[in-house]
This record gives sequence, C-alpha cells and structure tokens, in this order.
Amino acid sequence: MILHDYLPSGNGYKVRLLLDLLDQPYEYRHYDIVRGETRTPEFLRKNPAGKVPVLELDDGRFLSESNAILYYLAQGTDYWPEGRWDQAQVLRWMSFEQYSHEPNIATPRFWLTHLGLNEERKAQLAGKQALGRAALAVMDDHLARQAWFVADRYTIADIALYAYTHVAQEGGFTLADYPNVCRWLERVASHPNHRPITEE
Amino acid sequence: MILHDYLPSGNGYKVRLLLDLLDQPYEYRHYDIVRGETRTPEFLRKNPAGKVPVLELDDGRFLSESNAILYYLAQGTDYWPEGRWDQAQVLRWMSFEQYSHEPNIATPRFWLTHLGLNEERKAQLAGKQALGRAALAVMDDHLARQAWFVADRYTIADIALYAYTHVAQEGGFTLADYPNVCRWLERVASHPNHRPITEE
Repeated sequence: MILHDYLPSGNGYKVRLLLDLLDQPYEYRHYDIVRGETRTPEFLRKNPAGKVPVLELDDGRFLSESNAILYYLAQGTDYWPEGRWDQAQVLRWMSFEQYSHEPNIATPRFWLTHLGLNEERKAQLAGKQALGRAALAVMDDHLARQAWFVADRYTIADIALYAYTHVAQEGGFTLADYPNVCRWLERVASHPNHRPITEE
Repeated sequence: MILHDYLPSGNGYKVRLLLDLLDQPYEYRHYDIVRGETRTPEFLRKNPAGKVPVLELDDGRFLSESNAILYYLAQGTDYWPEGRWDQAQVLRWMSFEQYSHEPNIATPRFWLTHLGLNEERKAQLAGKQALGRAALAVMDDHLARQAWFVADRYTIADIALYAYTHVAQEGGFTLADYPNVCRWLERVASHPNHRPITEE
C-alpha cells in the first residue's frame, strides 16, 4: 500500500497511527499542500477533492477521506468494535471530529503555524477558538466517565480525535484546562507502537 | 423511536428520508435551533454538542450525528452495501459531505434563509460559495460515470449528499450548472416513499 500524505497533517497522521498499530508496512509519498502539490491533474486523479491523505491499494484503487480509510483498515481488527450500537458511536465521534473539532482546532493551528493571519483569518480566529474550546469541553466531559471514547477500548474514534487534539496548543488552546483529555492523550501515546506526528 | 429534529435541517432530513424509505414509524419532536432550543440543559443531555438530529431508541439511549444515525439505521438493509471497499466508499462520500459540502452549501443557505448577513458572514460568503461550487463540480464529475455514488445503487451516501444539494439554490447556487447532479436529484426523488424536506 502507498500512503499519499503531508507530514504535518493530522488527517494523514490518523492513518499513519493506525498502520503502525496494525504493524502494516506501507510506502510513503509526501506532497506539500502549501505549495499546491495536491492540486495537480495527477493528484486530482487520486482524489478529485484535492486533499491528503489518500490510500493507494496494491491493485491501484484509491481511497480518500481519513475516517473512511480508518474504517477500511480497521475492519476485522480490535480497533473496530462489534455491534452496530458501538460502531455507530465510533462514527458519531468521527463525525463530531470532522464537523465540530477539526475546523475549529486544526484550522487555527494551520493558520498559526503555516499560513499566517491575514485580515479574513484574523476576523474568524476568535470565533473558531471558542467553538474549539466547546469541542474540547465536550470531550473532557465524556472522558470524565470513561477511559476511551467507545466500547471501553482503544478504537479508531480515539485515533481520529487524538490527531489534532494532541497538537491543539499550536492552535492557541490550553490543554491543561481539560484534565481528562490530558490523561486520555497519555493513554493513547503509551501504546508501544505509538509514534509522533511528524516522524516519517 | 423518537427523532429530535428541526424541520428545515438537511441533517435531520437525511434521517427522515431513510426512515421513510425503510417504512419505519417514529415520533417527531421539533426544536427551534434559532431560538436556542437545542442549547437547554435538557437537550444537552441528549447530545452534549447541542445539535439536531438526535435519534432516541426505545430503551432511552441517544444517538447523535446524522451520518452515524444513517449508518445505524441502514445496517442489514439495501442502503448499506456489502464488502468493506464499498462500505468505505460510502463513508468517504459521507465525510466529503460533512467536511467539503455541508459547511459551504448548507451554511450559506442557513445564513441567507434564517440568520441574514452580518459583516462577518458577508466577508465569508463568497469564499464559502466558491468551495461549494467546487464540491458540486466533484459530484457532477463523479455522476457523469455512474447513476449513484457507490455500488450502483441507492445508498446512505446518496441520502447524505441529497439533503443539502437539492436545496442548494437557497444558498445562492445554480444547480443547472451541474446537469449530472440534476439527473441524480430526480433519480433520488422518484422513489415512491420520497417526501419533501419540510413535510413532517
């Protein structure tokens, strides 16, 4: 398998984390999204939405969208629970991540560490950070009652939420305000196969 | 089952569409999101993210996030395909809908039909509409080669994308620019159990 990815991307990191947990070897191809390398005609044939990550299977088929890739790779492993209620809860938290978490936590990080603040971004930053704090509060409250997001064990819901939460400080968030989140971050990072986000 | 919902919501409409396709009876509870009725302590116990739709099962458990609800309800029916590749493709399109489509098509619609344009929204509108047109172009290109999004049949990927696409005009989009999308909208709407978005 080949992973088409951008190293600082949390969405790509989700896939790298799971591939490592599964001891699944893969080839890595790096694209600089800031330089438009995912907007070339060649890349758009892999994913018409022009986004990393994209997983290329051995037969040449392409799968895009990080959470869909997590689903695909996790089938038949411990990271995807049995039973449609727990499965739906995994998808619930992955949807929460994509809609309420990522645009308000990952996007401020991308602006502050990569793009810088122009007038339009400056006008939106405080609003996004307020929504990001609300998302972290929802997570902290949930983790006050359980060690993992779903099914009392490490699933792809934890992977999806870990990716941008553990670097939220880079988006201007104070993780120490969310002690249950901090303990869960340590729990995820304690897996023997765990590795940092920017390590290829 | 009880569906906690807001009638103009496309996210709620996704669930109503599938429940009707499955001939599944349910009780309907309406909340006015503009008046803050999903921000009360009572509602936040159903969904701490404070969003509709929420499906309440007969045993009192709550499931939030429209695409997770679609997954839950579709298990064992024709609207969820067999095989992990097709299943991952359904999730790919549902993720595309949540991340690249809904914030750029549903949000302009909500602003123009409900909230009106203040300075901050006015500054963002053109950018969102450009991204929304890009999402419609990706869909149109995909539908040039196939009648349905995944597995040559009507699945929950079509439901997820139909909900806000068919009312995109209300967000300032010109659907006639996307002829394959228009034909697909007619295909979805031709199901005998199909009903309009604001019909309870």
